Amino acid sequence: MMKSHAQKRTADRGKSKLSRFARQLLREWKRLNLPQADARVVVAVSGGADSVSLLLALDELVQSGKLNVDFPVAHLDHRLRKSSGNDARWVKALAKRLRYSVVARSVKVSQRAVATQDNLEQAARHARYAFLFDVAKEMAAQIVLTAHTMDDQAETVLLNLLRGSGSDGLGGIEPVRLLAQGSGVALVRPLVSWARRSDTESYCRARGVDFLMDEMNDDQRFARVRVRRQLLPLMASFNPKIVESLARVADLAREDSAALEKEADEILQLAISNNSKTGAHKRLKVQPVWSAASALRRRALRQWIRECRGDLKRLERVHILAVESLLFGERGGRVVELPGGAKVARKRDLLEYTE
Amino acid sequence: MMKSHAQKRTADRGKSKLSRFARQLLREWKRLNLPQADARVVVAVSGGADSVSLLLALDELVQSGKLNVDFPVAHLDHRLRKSSGNDARWVKALAKRLRYSVVARSVKVSQRAVATQDNLEQAARHARYAFLFDVAKEMAAQIVLTAHTMDDQAETVLLNLLRGSGSDGLGGIEPVRLLAQGSGVALVRPLVSWARRSDTESYCRARGVDFLMDEMNDDQRFARVRVRRQLLPLMASFNPKIVESLARVADLAREDSAALEKEADEILQLAISNNSKTGAHKRLKVQPVWSAASALRRRALRQWIRECRGDLKRLERVHILAVESLLFGERGGRVVELPGGAKVARKRDLLEYTE
Repeated sequence: MMKSHAQKRTADRGKSKLSRFARQLLREWKRLNLPQADARVVVAVSGGADSVSLLLALDELVQSGKLNVDFPVAHLDHRLRKSSGNDARWVKALAKRLRYSVVARSVKVSQRAVATQDNLEQAARHARYAFLFDVAKEMAAQIVLTAHTMDDQAETVLLNLLRGSGSDGLGGIEPVRLLAQGSGVALVRPLVSWARRSDTESYCRARGVDFLMDEMNDDQRFARVRVRRQLLPLMASFNPKIVESLARVADLAREDSAALEKEADEILQLAISNNSKTGAHKRLKVQPVWSAASALRRRALRQWIRECRGDLKRLERVHILAVESLLFGERGGRVVELPGGAKVARKRDLLEYTE
Repeated sequence: MMKSHAQKRTADRGKSKLSRFARQLLREWKRLNLPQADARVVVAVSGGADSVSLLLALDELVQSGKLNVDFPVAHLDHRLRKSSGNDARWVKALAKRLRYSVVARSVKVSQRAVATQDNLEQAARHARYAFLFDVAKEMAAQIVLTAHTMDDQAETVLLNLLRGSGSDGLGGIEPVRLLAQGSGVALVRPLVSWARRSDTESYCRARGVDFLMDEMNDDQRFARVRVRRQLLPLMASFNPKIVESLARVADLAREDSAALEKEADEILQLAISNNSKTGAHKRLKVQPVWSAASALRRRALRQWIRECRGDLKRLERVHILAVESLLFGERGGRVVELPGGAKVARKRDLLEYTE
């Protein structure tokens, strides 16, 4: 059946009413196979242009009937600035005006940093993700969104490059990952693969909605701020599309890393099989690991240590290389001590992990 | 038998006489399994501090009896500067003084660049490697050395990063590779893994030997020069060991790349097997490639196209992605045209390459 002129006009209007920003978000939403109906998805909103634009665009998609999803807003006051209480009130007011529920809490990040010996940025990140996990559980939501942009991606790639990272670090921010291992909650970044920071700002302005400025974004004591204000502009003088290029570097590195981790896992399974006793994974056959390419060998050893130890805290490349050296030669009795006190020993054709 | 005091003293003196630079070169020489006797190894010498220091250190190792190897010197005059004829004479005089034979030739790189549509840097590199290959053949040498340093490595990594490269590009300069596919001549960079450019300069000075300065090293129209003069110094303000860190990035990327290319080759062999007819490699079974991780899938397709086509000239990522898209879905008849006119078509459960 052909559409009448009137129908066609309405359809066109319906389509053109959706902003370009919301349309791009919807395309990414579908590409990531996120639920379009009957779901609850937590949106982390700091009040900056990134997260405000995300919330506004999701609201556009809800209002236009493209998404039938509940979007509770989560805001954590890190109490790193005197004005942070105002930010929380501002975010609550915005969510209320848009008719989304809000969970806002506050945590004294500086105290936690002292307790955990993390730096402020790490402590803030840990506190934030713990908070988002709690909110997801309380709300029975399986998905949490953060509004990282392609600019955040480029900055993360460069920060890791400056440290001399391999493909794990160069992979940068993952568009989809688990919020915590075994948590069953997905952490999704629906802007990171396409939205520039400037896009989020123009979209907020076009919607006539204000956003907050974080003065820490201007504090050049933070490496990330200097990457943004000094390094990226210089790199843009070589390649005006540098942010997109670094995002591609990240995509390629994540693809490489995924293929290599999978391969390393197969080697690991081979090396710990036929050990049916309890704690059998704490013994590793040397041969299958030794004969693998070095990129796989080192990844298999790291996976093995993570399985034995529960985590990779304070484990550096130098420790993996020391364990790797146990694979070479025949001589048993050699031992490598890991941070925290666990040991790996070479025993004939096995490596053995002991606490 | 114990050594006499006199013997011991002589041995110590013999050891301490070797400069730190020459000792580090010797360590790398052994690590790379290069021949310590009865061999002829071509040394490419431009006259800059890098190649002069390499030649001087090799000579130290010959004089001290550590290496019993013939080192003919190869110099190519690119005729890009008026004074380049003087450089050639200077290199000839240096080699003569050290009693090594010299092959010096000249080529008008600017003319070749016009003919081949390469840019000047590419044309110079092609001309240089063609020349080194000729010299190796004429001299019956299986190894050619170039004096790339760790600084060259860092610059190469950054230039490729600026382009948005994957691990192939981030792998930078290979310490050992074939000079040309199937050539049987190894191209070795015995300085790239450890020597800073400043080390080569101080070593030349310590030996009291002059070196040439290439004014093109100051020409900021070249991206490489701007990377050296602007980008690396800014990055060093984040990490004073940035050159070493970027060299590690390159090492890790090369390791990843090697493991992935090997894996991709296995997939490719699976996908072209059971096709015993001539030209069978021009038919590729879809299933083994389709089911691989994307990092492997794309590498397998690139390897396949290189085998069918003979090279990868002008083949961009976009072409690989287009061929990859033929793997998805069942519909035959779809065709992708490659630069130069060859085509890849989907035919049922096969991809078919035709010129």
